[in-house]
Amino acid sequence: MSVVAQEILLNSRPNGAPTLDTFRSVRRSLPAPSDGQLLVRTLWMSVDPYMRGRMRDQPSYIAPFQVGEPLEGAAVGVVEESRAENFAKGDVVSHFSGWRDHAVIDATTATKIDLDAAPAEAWLGPLGVPGFTAFVGLERFGALKSGETVFISAAAGAVGSMAVQIAKAKGARVIASAGSDDKVAWVGELGADEVINYKTAKDLTAALRKAAPEGLDVYFDNVGGKHLDAALAVAKDSARIVVCGMIAGYNDELPSETMHHLSAIVIKRLSLRGFIVLDHYDLYPEFSAAMIGWLKEGKVKSRDTVHDGLDSAPKAFLGLFSGDNTGKMLVKLADR
Amino acid sequence: MSVVAQEILLNSRPNGAPTLDTFRSVRRSLPAPSDGQLLVRTLWMSVDPYMRGRMRDQPSYIAPFQVGEPLEGAAVGVVEESRAENFAKGDVVSHFSGWRDHAVIDATTATKIDLDAAPAEAWLGPLGVPGFTAFVGLERFGALKSGETVFISAAAGAVGSMAVQIAKAKGARVIASAGSDDKVAWVGELGADEVINYKTAKDLTAALRKAAPEGLDVYFDNVGGKHLDAALAVAKDSARIVVCGMIAGYNDELPSETMHHLSAIVIKRLSLRGFIVLDHYDLYPEFSAAMIGWLKEGKVKSRDTVHDGLDSAPKAFLGLFSGDNTGKMLVKLADR
Repeated sequence: MSVVAQEILLNSRPNGAPTLDTFRSVRRSLPAPSDGQLLVRTLWMSVDPYMRGRMRDQPSYIAPFQVGEPLEGAAVGVVEESRAENFAKGDVVSHFSGWRDHAVIDATTATKIDLDAAPAEAWLGPLGVPGFTAFVGLERFGALKSGETVFISAAAGAVGSMAVQIAKAKGARVIASAGSDDKVAWVGELGADEVINYKTAKDLTAALRKAAPEGLDVYFDNVGGKHLDAALAVAKDSARIVVCGMIAGYNDELPSETMHHLSAIVIKRLSLRGFIVLDHYDLYPEFSAAMIGWLKEGKVKSRDTVHDGLDSAPKAFLGLFSGDNTGKMLVKLADR
Repeated sequence: MSVVAQEILLNSRPNGAPTLDTFRSVRRSLPAPSDGQLLVRTLWMSVDPYMRGRMRDQPSYIAPFQVGEPLEGAAVGVVEESRAENFAKGDVVSHFSGWRDHAVIDATTATKIDLDAAPAEAWLGPLGVPGFTAFVGLERFGALKSGETVFISAAAGAVGSMAVQIAKAKGARVIASAGSDDKVAWVGELGADEVINYKTAKDLTAALRKAAPEGLDVYFDNVGGKHLDAALAVAKDSARIVVCGMIAGYNDELPSETMHHLSAIVIKRLSLRGFIVLDHYDLYPEFSAAMIGWLKEGKVKSRDTVHDGLDSAPKAFLGLFSGDNTGKMLVKLADR
């Protein structure tokens, strides 16, 4: 069986903010799967801020994208043809060869998912990298305990919205930030105790201090910059700052942030810890059991911003940097 | 026995850099020691950058100095009169009631020191807070191992010069920074493998990258600001940044630092940890045994910048912020 796939390639490395010209769509015939490989048809794919880093040609925790090669990312698909044990035609799998409507992948990069536990797209959100990232950050590095106060930035985003709900499920008091009135309202519906609109707040540090007069035990940072500075100012002694992302600077070759409260790191004996979820898959079984329970109990809700069709994927990606998404930004390619 | 003591008081809270007017010298009659107290005559006292923080009326890890009250700090003195068990006239002790030539202190705040192990002033340097701070930072938070590369800023300072020598004793490669050619030469004599003059280096990040082409495993931060930013840029994946002090901003009410490399915290999964040595006295026995050995073997050398007489203490303190000291800044009040 020979299949012609549509693929989105990296057309050119962006200098500053990516544009539609960063991407190029091509069609090509896929080879038949070899031993140990699968042909998958994509149902859903994810666009994520970290992909901006892979567009830069520099060493990082994950290899850079190559110009003229397909982009990659988390996806869910149906196995159309299997040359691997343990996989059969019709299985639904998550994998990392998104940005194309069909792909031939090594079966070792695919994981069968259970659509009885949660719908296909949930495996890219609550049960995927965003939910798992929130869990690892709060659990392993935040060590968040019931009754503590946590601040979560970009709380209407894919990771942030999961972190809000996991923190509430753990019994914490949650202060959150989001960038529009609609997002603020939605983050409130997710259970956050106080939500700050960081675009209209005149003084983020003052707003945070008012929302958390006793100070912060944990800050879950998705933003960096002014948010990090405000959290340093309002942190309690020995607070834990978990650095998950710094989207504020992702499009700058040399971001420039003016910080006023760095000395709090020593004065308040703070810890800051950057992490990459890939390093922590040992926690996945504990996480997925907990998350499937929370989803069933309704303690965690998912909300997706969905774009239709592979051709819309570049626009979906660009929208991440202008705050177009509430919750997870997904592209739907096909029904099962 | 009634003693008239000379004491240096906080005359007024400084706004920005302290001046001689921040201090006032007075004489007053001391009460006789009560049960459990000692009358001590000061031999040596220490001036330290952290004291600037105590001049500010704000909550911190240690209570602020009060206007019109004597300043406090580490000192070594001779017991002139003892009303406490375990202390006798003539004992030499370290205590925290510096900034005066005589003091009545609670015996619980005094520790007998062994002048056969090291001279009196060494108990304010290598065996005192500076040496112990360097040890705690490198050992407990840096987890520095033989063969690793560590960057130590303000390496000609009291803590930095100890950190350089302890890191060499542990078998690490040491990159250091200092602020004059004389200091650079001295830090080289202490054993640092590369020393950067940060005042003449045009681009601190480039200089650090050249000195540590493989990157840093540990950064021992005494400075903050540009030094921290350069270390973030040159850190290896999973590097540990130990934040001991940020003297760069101590005199500013709202320090302002332009940072370019904060996103390295997440990209390289860095950890940053601020600490206060007071929290870690459980390590003191291990430290003092090691340090007495290093001093005897000549692996650690002390160099002090000594001012004579209590009247010179304010000037000695002000000099900390203009880099007047090489090694520990001390004031000698009297011979034993």
